[in-house]
Amino acid sequence: MSDERKAAAKLWGGRFSEPTDAFVERFTASVGFDQRLYHHDIRGSIAHARMLAKVGVLTSEEEHQIIEGLEAVHADIEAGRFEWSVSLEDVHMNIEAALTERIGVTGKKLHTGRSRNDQIATDIRLYLRDEIDAIAAELGRLQSGLIELAEREADTIMPGFTHLQSAQPVTFGHHMLAWNEMLQRDHERLLDCRKRVNRLPLGAAALAGTSYPIDRYYTAELLGFDGPTANSLDSVSDRDFAIEFSSFAALLLTHLSRFSEELVLWTSAQFSFVDLPDRFCTGSSIMPQKKNPDVPELVRGKTGRVNGHLMSLLTLMKGQPLAYNKDNQEDKEPLFDTVDTVKGCLRAYADMMPALTVKRENTRAAARRGFATATDLADYLVRQGLAFRDAHEVVGQAVAYADRDGRDLEDLELAELQQFSATIREDVYEVLTLEGSVSARAHVGGTAPVRVREAAREAAQRLNSGP
Amino acid sequence: MSDERKAAAKLWGGRFSEPTDAFVERFTASVGFDQRLYHHDIRGSIAHARMLAKVGVLTSEEEHQIIEGLEAVHADIEAGRFEWSVSLEDVHMNIEAALTERIGVTGKKLHTGRSRNDQIATDIRLYLRDEIDAIAAELGRLQSGLIELAEREADTIMPGFTHLQSAQPVTFGHHMLAWNEMLQRDHERLLDCRKRVNRLPLGAAALAGTSYPIDRYYTAELLGFDGPTANSLDSVSDRDFAIEFSSFAALLLTHLSRFSEELVLWTSAQFSFVDLPDRFCTGSSIMPQKKNPDVPELVRGKTGRVNGHLMSLLTLMKGQPLAYNKDNQEDKEPLFDTVDTVKGCLRAYADMMPALTVKRENTRAAARRGFATATDLADYLVRQGLAFRDAHEVVGQAVAYADRDGRDLEDLELAELQQFSATIREDVYEVLTLEGSVSARAHVGGTAPVRVREAAREAAQRLNSGP
Amino acid sequence: MSDERKAAAKLWGGRFSEPTDAFVERFTASVGFDQRLYHHDIRGSIAHARMLAKVGVLTSEEEHQIIEGLEAVHADIEAGRFEWSVSLEDVHMNIEAALTERIGVTGKKLHTGRSRNDQIATDIRLYLRDEIDAIAAELGRLQSGLIELAEREADTIMPGFTHLQSAQPVTFGHHMLAWNEMLQRDHERLLDCRKRVNRLPLGAAALAGTSYPIDRYYTAELLGFDGPTANSLDSVSDRDFAIEFSSFAALLLTHLSRFSEELVLWTSAQFSFVDLPDRFCTGSSIMPQKKNPDVPELVRGKTGRVNGHLMSLLTLMKGQPLAYNKDNQEDKEPLFDTVDTVKGCLRAYADMMPALTVKRENTRAAARRGFATATDLADYLVRQGLAFRDAHEVVGQAVAYADRDGRDLEDLELAELQQFSATIREDVYEVLTLEGSVSARAHVGGTAPVRVREAAREAAQRLNSGP
Amino acid sequence: MSDERKAAAKLWGGRFSEPTDAFVERFTASVGFDQRLYHHDIRGSIAHARMLAKVGVLTSEEEHQIIEGLEAVHADIEAGRFEWSVSLEDVHMNIEAALTERIGVTGKKLHTGRSRNDQIATDIRLYLRDEIDAIAAELGRLQSGLIELAEREADTIMPGFTHLQSAQPVTFGHHMLAWNEMLQRDHERLLDCRKRVNRLPLGAAALAGTSYPIDRYYTAELLGFDGPTANSLDSVSDRDFAIEFSSFAALLLTHLSRFSEELVLWTSAQFSFVDLPDRFCTGSSIMPQKKNPDVPELVRGKTGRVNGHLMSLLTLMKGQPLAYNKDNQEDKEPLFDTVDTVKGCLRAYADMMPALTVKRENTRAAARRGFATATDLADYLVRQGLAFRDAHEVVGQAVAYADRDGRDLEDLELAELQQFSATIREDVYEVLTLEGSVSARAHVGGTAPVRVREAAREAAQRLNSGP
Repeated sequence: MSDERKAAAKLWGGRFSEPTDAFVERFTASVGFDQRLYHHDIRGSIAHARMLAKVGVLTSEEEHQIIEGLEAVHADIEAGRFEWSVSLEDVHMNIEAALTERIGVTGKKLHTGRSRNDQIATDIRLYLRDEIDAIAAELGRLQSGLIELAEREADTIMPGFTHLQSAQPVTFGHHMLAWNEMLQRDHERLLDCRKRVNRLPLGAAALAGTSYPIDRYYTAELLGFDGPTANSLDSVSDRDFAIEFSSFAALLLTHLSRFSEELVLWTSAQFSFVDLPDRFCTGSSIMPQKKNPDVPELVRGKTGRVNGHLMSLLTLMKGQPLAYNKDNQEDKEPLFDTVDTVKGCLRAYADMMPALTVKRENTRAAARRGFATATDLADYLVRQGLAFRDAHEVVGQAVAYADRDGRDLEDLELAELQQFSATIREDVYEVLTLEGSVSARAHVGGTAPVRVREAAREAAQRLNSGP
Repeated sequence: MSDERKAAAKLWGGRFSEPTDAFVERFTASVGFDQRLYHHDIRGSIAHARMLAKVGVLTSEEEHQIIEGLEAVHADIEAGRFEWSVSLEDVHMNIEAALTERIGVTGKKLHTGRSRNDQIATDIRLYLRDEIDAIAAELGRLQSGLIELAEREADTIMPGFTHLQSAQPVTFGHHMLAWNEMLQRDHERLLDCRKRVNRLPLGAAALAGTSYPIDRYYTAELLGFDGPTANSLDSVSDRDFAIEFSSFAALLLTHLSRFSEELVLWTSAQFSFVDLPDRFCTGSSIMPQKKNPDVPELVRGKTGRVNGHLMSLLTLMKGQPLAYNKDNQEDKEPLFDTVDTVKGCLRAYADMMPALTVKRENTRAAARRGFATATDLADYLVRQGLAFRDAHEVVGQAVAYADRDGRDLEDLELAELQQFSATIREDVYEVLTLEGSVSARAHVGGTAPVRVREAAREAAQRLNSGP
Repeated sequence: MSDERKAAAKLWGGRFSEPTDAFVERFTASVGFDQRLYHHDIRGSIAHARMLAKVGVLTSEEEHQIIEGLEAVHADIEAGRFEWSVSLEDVHMNIEAALTERIGVTGKKLHTGRSRNDQIATDIRLYLRDEIDAIAAELGRLQSGLIELAEREADTIMPGFTHLQSAQPVTFGHHMLAWNEMLQRDHERLLDCRKRVNRLPLGAAALAGTSYPIDRYYTAELLGFDGPTANSLDSVSDRDFAIEFSSFAALLLTHLSRFSEELVLWTSAQFSFVDLPDRFCTGSSIMPQKKNPDVPELVRGKTGRVNGHLMSLLTLMKGQPLAYNKDNQEDKEPLFDTVDTVKGCLRAYADMMPALTVKRENTRAAARRGFATATDLADYLVRQGLAFRDAHEVVGQAVAYADRDGRDLEDLELAELQQFSATIREDVYEVLTLEGSVSARAHVGGTAPVRVREAAREAAQRLNSGP
Repeated sequence: MSDERKAAAKLWGGRFSEPTDAFVERFTASVGFDQRLYHHDIRGSIAHARMLAKVGVLTSEEEHQIIEGLEAVHADIEAGRFEWSVSLEDVHMNIEAALTERIGVTGKKLHTGRSRNDQIATDIRLYLRDEIDAIAAELGRLQSGLIELAEREADTIMPGFTHLQSAQPVTFGHHMLAWNEMLQRDHERLLDCRKRVNRLPLGAAALAGTSYPIDRYYTAELLGFDGPTANSLDSVSDRDFAIEFSSFAALLLTHLSRFSEELVLWTSAQFSFVDLPDRFCTGSSIMPQKKNPDVPELVRGKTGRVNGHLMSLLTLMKGQPLAYNKDNQEDKEPLFDTVDTVKGCLRAYADMMPALTVKRENTRAAARRGFATATDLADYLVRQGLAFRDAHEVVGQAVAYADRDGRDLEDLELAELQQFSATIREDVYEVLTLEGSVSARAHVGGTAPVRVREAAREAAQRLNSGP
């Protein structure tokens, strides 16, 4: 570190009689993780400098010196030529010290009318806005893949489960669209969250605003924010946006954990409903025959990480008096890791889902087992005039009868069926087929192939028109 | 229980050879807590009956019998004349059994084209929508109270804190508006959540839809939903709305925990910034002199409860395969308790805040301590031509000097101040006053009284125009 | 309420000029849930009275009056004759008021040398200690059932899974003993927790101790505590025992959620490894054929509840200054519900597990699929002299070869096997059998039937000798 | 990477027809974080090799080759000469590949009779045991510091608070010993956890044990474990020890958050009870006068991180079927970060507490305010014959009277006091002094200086004799 930077090292040192303890310096420094924000920090500083020049606090000359200096620092960092210093505590002071070292005393004017408190709040919002946009794109890619898969498998019959017991036949496409519905809600929540992220806190300074004649609307415009925040005390202590984003992420990962659970089941020898390409699986160091669904399992496991970060942020903010407290430094690592986890999991799923192979004979065979059309028989009896509850009772007895010697309902003779209700006719076998069962459910939200194709088209439209 | 109801007791019994274990019956029954949904269950059943009649599944006669029967059951429940039965498991089967007992076999037709899976999903959305509206109203009442308090105390000076150290003077009204900003975001999140709650799942039946010619748009209209849900599998297994509502609640309570922390501090003998009316406090069974800020403390404690419920629901849904699983029965108690907690805390705060007395001399005296205008001196020096970083250093030395004999900056003689910077003039004392300091921060988001009044007006407008 | 009790209503009212707001009274009262502690509250009061008499603060006459009075109040509560009053706030003041109403002014002497702060801390420890003992008994009952089941199924072969892919054959008994290991650790944790619960906080009074000559060792002895706590400030603000118990419960329920997941899988049509008796299952209101594994599903769902309560308690205590704060009132409901949940889940499992039927043909057939003995082939090759890594590679190729036409390893001809390694002999088929595979793993912790029987015996011994 | 290592890269590749996707390889690799375990991995491998030689699976020559090879790899890593490869997935395969590259085909024999599943379980237990010992030492250092501080400040009077309202006078030493009690319980929990960590899982192999004649007792002895685990399925899927450790950590950090809250309050201008040395504080980039209690604030914030990790691990394990699943890879980062956080926070506190300066005049002055001896007056009246409840009422009135003109109880004239009870005599002023009040509480657990000194001695003994 140069002498210049060493001298600048403790920018707040005037009042202190004793240097910071070396361990404490390390323990309290954030530069180890917040250096990741350098791009957004510099972008914010450039906008701040332009605003200061517009309102006359900086001369045009100073403005240009500062902007060129910041761009040079940016280039140094991108090129890996920048030496981060723990004793300069954080990304802001590292960059400012480098700026001052490069352009001299004018660099010291950049911090006019702001504080690290509103600066970090601005950096992190710029960062998160960019990440939200990247996540929305990846989420959309996964949704498109699911919708296409749904169309492809609109006619594929599989058992629909409740309580992991075969309940009624559904179509595989319908199942995929159920997944898409969950993601669509997540998508909407993400964009709702973005509205609240996209406000400029800069200008709040330490907590009360500043006595300089700043123009916050101008800075907001330069940085693409919808406008400035409304209250300086709130601006420096608000971490709602991180918590709201984490809530979005926890729900998204919860959904992915459910998809993962199903993929793990479906790739087991017992279900054998789908095949995952080898490139999404790994093997065993001891069992040569193994092909493990690592990606779904790992994604399922990562739910814990994201839920944990949400709880971490909520605990962090609990009971904090206004305004900024050092506790808030702890907001960044959970947020960064949540962003990275969400992006990784979405990418893995968006790559993997279109490559899924559905084993249609297996899913169909499974649907044939387990009396999946028993409800159709009950509905048939209701159309013959029985009250639903009575029909339900009748079918229950027929199921028990058939189960005794391992047959399904459609394996029963007409005469056998008529033991349970005299009104049953030959046409009953139409409703007992799998195709008959699914096709009969053609209303909005139903599982009929014709409806699934329509629902897929609507889902694609919703996605493309933006929530 | 009548014989009729006993007979109906196990509506799914046809297939079973052994009755449910008595403990298991109790352990798995939900009627102990879901009876709370009776009003919404009956409301949903009436709409379902009207729809079934519209599409010709019920005759007009049957429709009227059912509706009258349900209304009579409703009246029984409201009058405390209804005997809930654990062996009938849940609210739905209790009500249906009572209906059938009352109107005979027609009652058994009501369950046509639906299942308990979509029925409970409908009930809970109807319930939550009503509660969201009640919560939004109570939240608005609290916000109005804060905004009025902010206007009343727009000129009141208090210390602004960072790290619980006096930082710069702010106005009490400004502080109250910071609280309002948090609540305003919560309000917006609540209404965003409502959009996703307000969709009709009925018609999904068990999981695949139904073979009856149902009209889900009609049912949705009757119940005031924005429309039907798009996928039956998703409809019966989606609990997002409960989790999203809990996320809202966790953030709201986190905010209330922060307000509570400040009120507890401010009512301590050490701060003594405000007085709470006796009616919001309690005493001690052993220490006769105590007057404890129970309401803020209890609200702060309730943050735990709401965070816990959020974690409970996330854990509950993790890794569940589609569609409905019995696990989901566990969604109701956390949701109900979250709703009750939110309503109770908001009511307590909405009642309490307008009754707060600000001890203006104390807040002003506290602001005078702690070199709160040191930043103003630095800004003054910058206007004399120093770079901000150099000004910061100079002021740091002046603070250390004054601190040595317990004086504040404005207690220093001009000559003493000039030791640190020769450019300081007599006009420096203007910026060192509290009123000068706050008035200088009149930009958007700043703490100046004039700005606080304007911000209060804008906040009231935002609130009244709806988010 | 009698006049006497009304007069006593606000035991701390002397200093107050305004009555508590009616809503606030309800909002802050705890009697709705802490009345559950009446038995332990009275037990603690009786011991306190005896101690006060022993040290001369009460006369023997007063002591007997108080004890008889408390016993009469206890009898009233047990008989359902006690009217709980919200305006008396909590269980302590309700009981004390009833005592004073019954025995007159002497009743007012009971609260000498104690406070509600140390009283509630005592009550809840007495309560929790009793519940811990009940839970330990129920946990032991479940463990015994598992150990017996393990012995019964020591020879039953099933596939061992990793990644839900068939990995190697194991015995069903071995699998049950894996479950027991988890419970055994939970059992030990529970007893470790009990040590820290079993200390007497009474005598801490409000926070500082008392000026009366109390004998805390005597009270501790009367109540069966190991001794008094060591610091009064800590005693009234410590809720560690509730959090530690909740941590135990969260791990226990996590284990039960894992057992439940397996039972849900095993009762699915796809696995069909076990049968649950009808009395632990329920049916569907719409699908007549369903038999749902409700108990395991519900227990799995209850994991959320217990995890949530743990998080609730941790959030509650975060950042609380000493000593007692009203926040702490929120400790009881999560603790009570955790206790009830743990007891209910253990009872359900302890009843259910011995009634499980293992479908031995199915588990054996499943173990034959999926190349479960591939590792045994690799081990065989190592014994022939190959390095393990090379053997692993060879077997991988053999598996890929067999998989191509749907055969398992033991279906390959010797000549075919020798294509992959010339050292393979006829004796290879011994290691490729399921029985050969499991029997070979007879070391401590291994899955061989002989070892499972031994391990079951050891497990029973550990359980019976107490952790 | 050398050709040799490339060839070894996918140790499980035999069965696969397609290489792993590059992103998937990165996404699923753990070497980025588990390389931290290299020391324990090598230590475990050396013990495994020695055991294999002892039972005759390796020759003595092979054993020595492997051990020397492993030690050379260890040295390379320590010296920063080791190149970690993502395509080798994890720490185990990186080290094994390096070993084989170095010593040739013998290296491939090391993996005999084990799997990565039991290997990682062993590594992480060895790691955690070492860290537990380090944490116990640091925790003990903090406790010793608190106990010494307690002795030093045994006579220092401060207000004891409940509800953050001054309640009764206590001694500063007593307050410090309350902190120590919490830590002592944490210490005991840590050692209880260690018992369950200290079992050897190696030998479980993939999940079922191994067909080699391994001697698990010998390996356990070599590695200092109390013995081998009892069940192989459990051994590879058990992560209890990580969750139990996290529960310990969550409670410890909750305690530290409470200490931190108090230090933040006490260093505020309003309380001003203590001074933290400059070296534990930092300043502000904008406000030159600030000295912020960064260390306590940051520690308080880190509670969120540790609670979050606990929730993360519980979520991770929920509903996982046996045995190893890829999800479990997610156990390491939360555990590592929890260990690091605990160590950092303990170190900061252990350094900071002995350097604390208590401002004795301020704490004493604060204790004089707020009627802190009101309870003593009530106790005095009880000794004159009043029932406690009546005495409480009398003192409440006296407090209200004194409060009216801003006086404390001891400022009232005897005649004034006698208005409230005729039995009051001159000797009342003795009990109304702060010294009188604290000295009167000399029973076990009380705040009297004489007791505090004794309690400090006992605390030191307990600490030194080990829990």
